[in-house]
Amino acid sequence: MRAETSQPLSLNNVRVTDPFWAREIGLIRQAVIPYQWKALHDQIPDAAPSWWAHNMRAAARAVAAKKAGGVYVPTHRSERIETLPEEGKKPLEDAFYGFVFQDSDGYKWLEAVAYQLMIKPDPVLQAQAQEAVDMICAAQEEDGYLDTFYTLTGRDRAFTNLRDNHELYCFGHLTEAAVAWHQATGRDDLLNAARRFAACIAERFGPDKERGCPGHEIAEMALMRLYEETGETRWRDLSQFFLDVRGTEPNTFAVEENRRRAEKGQPELPTTSERYQYHQAHMPVREMKEAVGHAVRQMYLCCGMADEARLNDDPEMLAACERLWQSVVNEKLYITGGVGGTHVGEAFSRPFDLPADTAYSETCAAIGLAFFARRMLQLKPLSDYADVMEQALYNTVLSGMALDGQSFFYVNPLEVDPDACETDQRLSHVKPIRQKWFGCACCPPNIARIVSSLGQYIFTQTQDTLFFHLYIGSDVTVNLNGGKVTLRMEADLLKNGDVHVTVLEGEAQGTLAFRDPAWAGNAHVKIPAGVKSWSENGYLYAKGVWKQGGQVTIHFTMPVKAVKASPLVKEAMNQVCFTRGPLVFCAEEADNGKRLHLLRALPDRVAEAREKTVIIDGLTLPAVILPGRRVKEPAKNAPLYTPWTPAETEDTEMTLIPYFAWNNRGKGEMRVWLAAE
Amino acid sequence: MRAETSQPLSLNNVRVTDPFWAREIGLIRQAVIPYQWKALHDQIPDAAPSWWAHNMRAAARAVAAKKAGGVYVPTHRSERIETLPEEGKKPLEDAFYGFVFQDSDGYKWLEAVAYQLMIKPDPVLQAQAQEAVDMICAAQEEDGYLDTFYTLTGRDRAFTNLRDNHELYCFGHLTEAAVAWHQATGRDDLLNAARRFAACIAERFGPDKERGCPGHEIAEMALMRLYEETGETRWRDLSQFFLDVRGTEPNTFAVEENRRRAEKGQPELPTTSERYQYHQAHMPVREMKEAVGHAVRQMYLCCGMADEARLNDDPEMLAACERLWQSVVNEKLYITGGVGGTHVGEAFSRPFDLPADTAYSETCAAIGLAFFARRMLQLKPLSDYADVMEQALYNTVLSGMALDGQSFFYVNPLEVDPDACETDQRLSHVKPIRQKWFGCACCPPNIARIVSSLGQYIFTQTQDTLFFHLYIGSDVTVNLNGGKVTLRMEADLLKNGDVHVTVLEGEAQGTLAFRDPAWAGNAHVKIPAGVKSWSENGYLYAKGVWKQGGQVTIHFTMPVKAVKASPLVKEAMNQVCFTRGPLVFCAEEADNGKRLHLLRALPDRVAEAREKTVIIDGLTLPAVILPGRRVKEPAKNAPLYTPWTPAETEDTEMTLIPYFAWNNRGKGEMRVWLAAE
Repeated sequence: MRAETSQPLSLNNVRVTDPFWAREIGLIRQAVIPYQWKALHDQIPDAAPSWWAHNMRAAARAVAAKKAGGVYVPTHRSERIETLPEEGKKPLEDAFYGFVFQDSDGYKWLEAVAYQLMIKPDPVLQAQAQEAVDMICAAQEEDGYLDTFYTLTGRDRAFTNLRDNHELYCFGHLTEAAVAWHQATGRDDLLNAARRFAACIAERFGPDKERGCPGHEIAEMALMRLYEETGETRWRDLSQFFLDVRGTEPNTFAVEENRRRAEKGQPELPTTSERYQYHQAHMPVREMKEAVGHAVRQMYLCCGMADEARLNDDPEMLAACERLWQSVVNEKLYITGGVGGTHVGEAFSRPFDLPADTAYSETCAAIGLAFFARRMLQLKPLSDYADVMEQALYNTVLSGMALDGQSFFYVNPLEVDPDACETDQRLSHVKPIRQKWFGCACCPPNIARIVSSLGQYIFTQTQDTLFFHLYIGSDVTVNLNGGKVTLRMEADLLKNGDVHVTVLEGEAQGTLAFRDPAWAGNAHVKIPAGVKSWSENGYLYAKGVWKQGGQVTIHFTMPVKAVKASPLVKEAMNQVCFTRGPLVFCAEEADNGKRLHLLRALPDRVAEAREKTVIIDGLTLPAVILPGRRVKEPAKNAPLYTPWTPAETEDTEMTLIPYFAWNNRGKGEMRVWLAAE
Repeated sequence: MRAETSQPLSLNNVRVTDPFWAREIGLIRQAVIPYQWKALHDQIPDAAPSWWAHNMRAAARAVAAKKAGGVYVPTHRSERIETLPEEGKKPLEDAFYGFVFQDSDGYKWLEAVAYQLMIKPDPVLQAQAQEAVDMICAAQEEDGYLDTFYTLTGRDRAFTNLRDNHELYCFGHLTEAAVAWHQATGRDDLLNAARRFAACIAERFGPDKERGCPGHEIAEMALMRLYEETGETRWRDLSQFFLDVRGTEPNTFAVEENRRRAEKGQPELPTTSERYQYHQAHMPVREMKEAVGHAVRQMYLCCGMADEARLNDDPEMLAACERLWQSVVNEKLYITGGVGGTHVGEAFSRPFDLPADTAYSETCAAIGLAFFARRMLQLKPLSDYADVMEQALYNTVLSGMALDGQSFFYVNPLEVDPDACETDQRLSHVKPIRQKWFGCACCPPNIARIVSSLGQYIFTQTQDTLFFHLYIGSDVTVNLNGGKVTLRMEADLLKNGDVHVTVLEGEAQGTLAFRDPAWAGNAHVKIPAGVKSWSENGYLYAKGVWKQGGQVTIHFTMPVKAVKASPLVKEAMNQVCFTRGPLVFCAEEADNGKRLHLLRALPDRVAEAREKTVIIDGLTLPAVILPGRRVKEPAKNAPLYTPWTPAETEDTEMTLIPYFAWNNRGKGEMRVWLAAE
């Protein structure tokens, strides 16, 4: 199997030129990264402090004190998931503040910066990143341990609560950043920090050592990446250990909890696994059939599993990945590419429970789904994987950030009534406007890292084949069967489905594989004479010699489509959603007035859709105008219940805009699913 | 105004003979009252203890100790809303346990018993009730104070937390019971206890004394009832004080909270009213326009306001009542006669927010609505009030109790999927089966008291006129203009709309007023020759001499109706509900299989409805068979989203049963609103 798997390209070899996405990547560099740097240093007025720099510096002082031969005695201990300064008092210099996983904020920032440096060198930005790297390295303890929460609140308790306290999660993000930083700069300072922390972890956990696994997954895929970067097989093996110990009995989370309970004289709890659904530790991963629990964690676990399947050539693990994939896409996926139907536990809900207004659909979970999809594509080039990856990227991932890069959604509902969100505690997780920064700020830096590394989602390659998974305009340099070519892909899916690929320079013999997207009506393809082509698993393969001037032209028709959900999705019964290409459209109050639930779409007349553009926040975006009806508003004090008559409606035109662009014109209602007449 | 208002009749003068309702009243006597007596004494296995008898006895010992000249020092103090014995330890003999309002459980039981004794004497039951009365009187302190929570946990703190600690609520229920007991038995033991407690309260609160009002309303209407029973105007005045101080500034709940905060050295909070919506203390009651906050409290407040409007001939208060009534029935009423759209605060939600599956619709709130409606009818005989009273009684109130009287719903949803309720924390308040007893057991004894006193809802009278508000078969003896007649009303709305009224004996000159229900198709009326008739405000008035053998016959047609909600009710958009007479029907899994959301009703074909009967738990009930369609189930692993096509459906027949009878055939899905084709 391994021989056939594909790899993402180095970001040094992909330059995104797409009119829309190049702007997004630039926005991350110009707006998001500087903003987040300030956030890490608690310099954003009116935003919750991150405490990242504070914690790193405090930990570095503690570590220095220990190295100087002293004993560091924490001034305070904390078992809380979030620690804040006492009300009305100044923060203590040597105290840990914020969430236990706060270190990861800076790691994610650093990873995004590394990708940006690969795209375009920037000595000033690199110097800033180096400052962060140095801060991190200074906070590492002599034995490699690196987690400011435990360094500052009691190192003796490190690794005693893997379920809740996220040190393996922080390790994972550190490692992701370290590999990216190494690839971007060639520097091994952070990579060595990651390896030393990994060694410290491996010292304690593993076969014939202590059993344990991450409460919030990510270390699994990070260790696989560390293995791929360094060739050191022990990291792959540790990742596999974490995967395979998970959900076996006695459950490691129960065992560690019982250890903590014993210290307090509390009675033992059962050590069976069934109550650990939230953590995906309710059964061995190889037996899993249904995506459950915290959605981000489930997606990150799937990434680790897919990496393991690929790097260990493990068909059993691949089968588990495929089952979980089917569970997500057939039963638990929002049409916006989001996952997580319930805010209770930020989690997957029951199959087909996909409420629009109370949706969780966390930005990070959609990012995790895109990570998973890319990994499945590496294992098997099926266009289904790329379709879902694209659906997540163009809709929920983008929706997570304002068009100006200054504010963010954590939760991405498919229906919003601001009055309801602001007064109804049942909707307290749904914000009607994007927020500046969160105390738990996982989403903004996660958007920064995936958008900055977009080149690794557009293409993957094998020795022979370059896969075009996404049609995002880019220049790409690739080595196929020993020959090197530079290709230019011109595309702009926000406008149309035209794709031009031209060989700019070089020559190689090999295959280009172009995805046939599920959204495409028809595809008209022109390939050079002498190139052999065939279709397989939703990709058009074109094999031949590629040299300067060689061209492939594809015209995908991109009609506006009316889409319905399975009748098992109770919440979407008799409702319709409109899409065009990868974009899901929505109705906003700004275009359609209040009480959007009174709109009636006419799916049978979707062919009458007219395309137009709208300018939002200076950006020209596609919009769609559709014939529709609107149920007449009842008179004031009309009776609440009346004998049945068909609803009185009047003709109207509905203007729909891309879902990702909603809420960039002030607060207002929004709906993705519209009642169908 | 006062001269025109009507009064309920004494239960000594109404004997319910209706085939359905006489059974319900008997069920209360034979099943519910004995069961609750055991519950009050913690003798129901596997049910949460009530602690009522325990607390009363412990308080009586404390009171006796004080009277014997000792000083009672509470062994423990509690500020909690619910106090339970320490885990694994035996309850302390002298401790208060349960909710702070636990005394009210016994008062409600006693009130129901008193009504039952008026319907039919029963020396054994009366002796049991006397035992309860004696227990209560023994727990009363020398100054009249009577609340076991404070007697047992610290009398010095009595009246310091009217907002949360329910002592005025317990007083209200004591007084309701005392008046009923006095009317049933002529005994003034409990009435005197209520008057002494009332005097103790009046000693502390009133104009020129301390400002304060009940956190959970009921004292307002109870004091009015005490005034009506005793003629002592001070109780009416205290009630009016409680009504008029409510929501004025400085807000009394804020003031008392600041007093408690000051004791703990905490800073003062603002004393404005806006944050007291939950308690209906956010503005003066005379200014209120919208029903808000805890639904039972809002309904009980409305009852007190309506009593005040009637007994003080107060048009301003009447106008406020009318506004609140409109707010409920035009914007916040479930079709089942339930109120309370949200479990957050057991409260009214926004106008038109009436979700079916997450509904709260507490049984007690529907009971409160019936109380309010009866009081509005007393003020003005408009059939609208009686329509809503009937809607609440026949649907949500009855739904609150199983057909065998052994289990109860607190929450009455309009759509249930048991799998969802049992696994989804967002639905944790919705129980898919009725429960035996609750720790907070307000609903079962509240059902007992309203059903036992049903005769006071069927009729009210003025000097000249007997109003027939409900068509529930009964024999009634009434004095009109000095003449006394006994009338027999034969009716059985569960079967049909035929009403026969016959004068059994006596003679009187006066008016009989028959409601023309909103559900009736046509009414065919036969009245004796020489009787003058006219219609007004939804009542048919028949004025003349009524003597033995005189007859009125009314045939209301009672077709099955298809009903829709206002388009502003988002949750009921494109859905239809079927009703017949006062009954709302629902689809249950037992008749229609799983996945009820796949059913499509055909409201245009409602004329094809066929009536049949079903036997549930030995009771013959009406059912309706309707043509419908069912959306075909998709294949396993079918795609979640597909291009729009009209849903594939197949013909089916739907069997609907009365909503109140749902969940008497085991656990299963249920829906009131059905998708309309």
